[in-house]
Amino acid sequence: MQYIQPFQLAFQEYLERHPFQKDPRNLYVPADYIMGLGGKRLRPVLLLIGHYLFDDHFQRSLPAAMAIEVFHNFTLVHDDIMDAAPLRRGKPTVHHRYGVNAGILSGDVMLIRAYQYLLDLNRPEMLPHLLDIFNTVAIEVCEGQQLDMDFEQQEVVSIPEYLKMIELKTSVLIAGALKMGALLGGGHAEDAGRLYEFGRNMGIAFQLQDDILDAFGDPEKVGKKVGGDIAQNKKTYLYLKAMELARAGQRETLKKWFGTAVEAEREQEKISQVLAIWHELGIRPLAEAAKQTYQQAAFDALGKVQASGERKKILEQLAEDLLVREA
Amino acid sequence: MQYIQPFQLAFQEYLERHPFQKDPRNLYVPADYIMGLGGKRLRPVLLLIGHYLFDDHFQRSLPAAMAIEVFHNFTLVHDDIMDAAPLRRGKPTVHHRYGVNAGILSGDVMLIRAYQYLLDLNRPEMLPHLLDIFNTVAIEVCEGQQLDMDFEQQEVVSIPEYLKMIELKTSVLIAGALKMGALLGGGHAEDAGRLYEFGRNMGIAFQLQDDILDAFGDPEKVGKKVGGDIAQNKKTYLYLKAMELARAGQRETLKKWFGTAVEAEREQEKISQVLAIWHELGIRPLAEAAKQTYQQAAFDALGKVQASGERKKILEQLAEDLLVREA
Repeated sequence: MQYIQPFQLAFQEYLERHPFQKDPRNLYVPADYIMGLGGKRLRPVLLLIGHYLFDDHFQRSLPAAMAIEVFHNFTLVHDDIMDAAPLRRGKPTVHHRYGVNAGILSGDVMLIRAYQYLLDLNRPEMLPHLLDIFNTVAIEVCEGQQLDMDFEQQEVVSIPEYLKMIELKTSVLIAGALKMGALLGGGHAEDAGRLYEFGRNMGIAFQLQDDILDAFGDPEKVGKKVGGDIAQNKKTYLYLKAMELARAGQRETLKKWFGTAVEAEREQEKISQVLAIWHELGIRPLAEAAKQTYQQAAFDALGKVQASGERKKILEQLAEDLLVREA
Repeated sequence: MQYIQPFQLAFQEYLERHPFQKDPRNLYVPADYIMGLGGKRLRPVLLLIGHYLFDDHFQRSLPAAMAIEVFHNFTLVHDDIMDAAPLRRGKPTVHHRYGVNAGILSGDVMLIRAYQYLLDLNRPEMLPHLLDIFNTVAIEVCEGQQLDMDFEQQEVVSIPEYLKMIELKTSVLIAGALKMGALLGGGHAEDAGRLYEFGRNMGIAFQLQDDILDAFGDPEKVGKKVGGDIAQNKKTYLYLKAMELARAGQRETLKKWFGTAVEAEREQEKISQVLAIWHELGIRPLAEAAKQTYQQAAFDALGKVQASGERKKILEQLAEDLLVREA
């Protein structure tokens, strides 16, 4: 994805010029640690591309891109505590490395810093509107995380409830980043709204693809073993669709496997049996179709954006690379 | 303290008209629970008085007062998790009642809502300045909490380090509330700065008084048993001053008692022995003198504020009631 490199490099350079590192060390070292774990920096890059659609000087929006990335990393730190996750991007999570208290407090200070970066933009005339978008998105992300935790305890979760949860937990931040970038670049409210829709639908399609790849992907390409979600009893789109369509016997088998923790030596048996049922029910094509619907909605929204076709091509290409080629 | 009732009542009414209560319930019920535990509502009241010094219509600043109170309650929720505190205002803490995950996530959403209230003020021309004050204070409060946790693990803490910690952890929020209120009421930057100094010094004096009362107060008046800080090995001003002045034998005794957890049946013996050393070293008058210094600095700063003497009287009276009469 070389075509997003200018945005990635500009962001990376800004990030390196703005470490948290200062006293008290126990507060800021964990923040620098998580910010340094890397990743594609997708959200800040999308914000910068949103700006670039309407104005050359996307660098002026770097503080807003930083706000989005710092916020995203704050959610990773706190979510990892709540999910008791030991690893993040192959490295120990913040609370595993520095303790739960450090995770809580460093996360808090990151959330506050995100707001400080919005102020550092030095666009006072835009601040109320930006803050409103940012607050709305931030609250929705918390609500999505709550729904995700609620669903773990809940016997029945409907597909619309699941889609709402992934929209809140992951899509609205992508959507909000694009919208903020568009407005900062001088795009009209209508186009900013279309980019929000592009991001929102792309985010949902991306999560559905994640669900599909986890069960049916090529472990070589996906970079993790197949069936991880099944092993962890995750109520993904695949599971929920299967529960919706299953005959009584299949439903009992699924409920049995997803109802308890399974000893390590029976994990493979569990994954095989669950996948067999999903094949019988034709879950994969149904999930692919759902993903396709959101993907199409994303491209439709992007198509209506009044901006240079050449620049819109960057987003089209990125969506395709993330949603199609990786599959 | 009847003279602050108009501000308390206005705030209480605003609070009741703005519950968090909506879905997902598991996210918002804990937030309403902590906001409903009550207290004097000192911080929002100070913000409203700060406004009233310069303008009659203090009600216009109610959303900013709410931002301060919601932020304060967010810190209580997260601090109680970090301090493993079971009780808050005599009731179960949020994480004891709803679980640690609920405490983390509800706290997060409260912090975001605080920013939303700053936006709800609908004073766009003031927003950059207000946000800057609020962010600075919020970051300092996190730093203060970190220092407080660091000090627990630290063998030696100097008195200036301790004073810095309590300034960050508790005083700057009081100071910031007054400053924001003054600016919102149309006060000049200089006067807002003086009110910040008043609040900052008052906050430090108030914490020193807390330390003194815990060891030497009348349990009837203070409402809790004497020596709680000693029982919990808290490194208060009294302890640090005693360690500074102690002869070798006294220092060993203090280190012994503060170095380990003590069985319940020896707690009274510990408190008596520690208090005896503090009496020998004359710690109480030294702490009173330190408190007096900050108190005087607070009154001096207030004296210079260019506002109606009658209205300033409210703050003078409040500081006296909090700092003198309760002692």
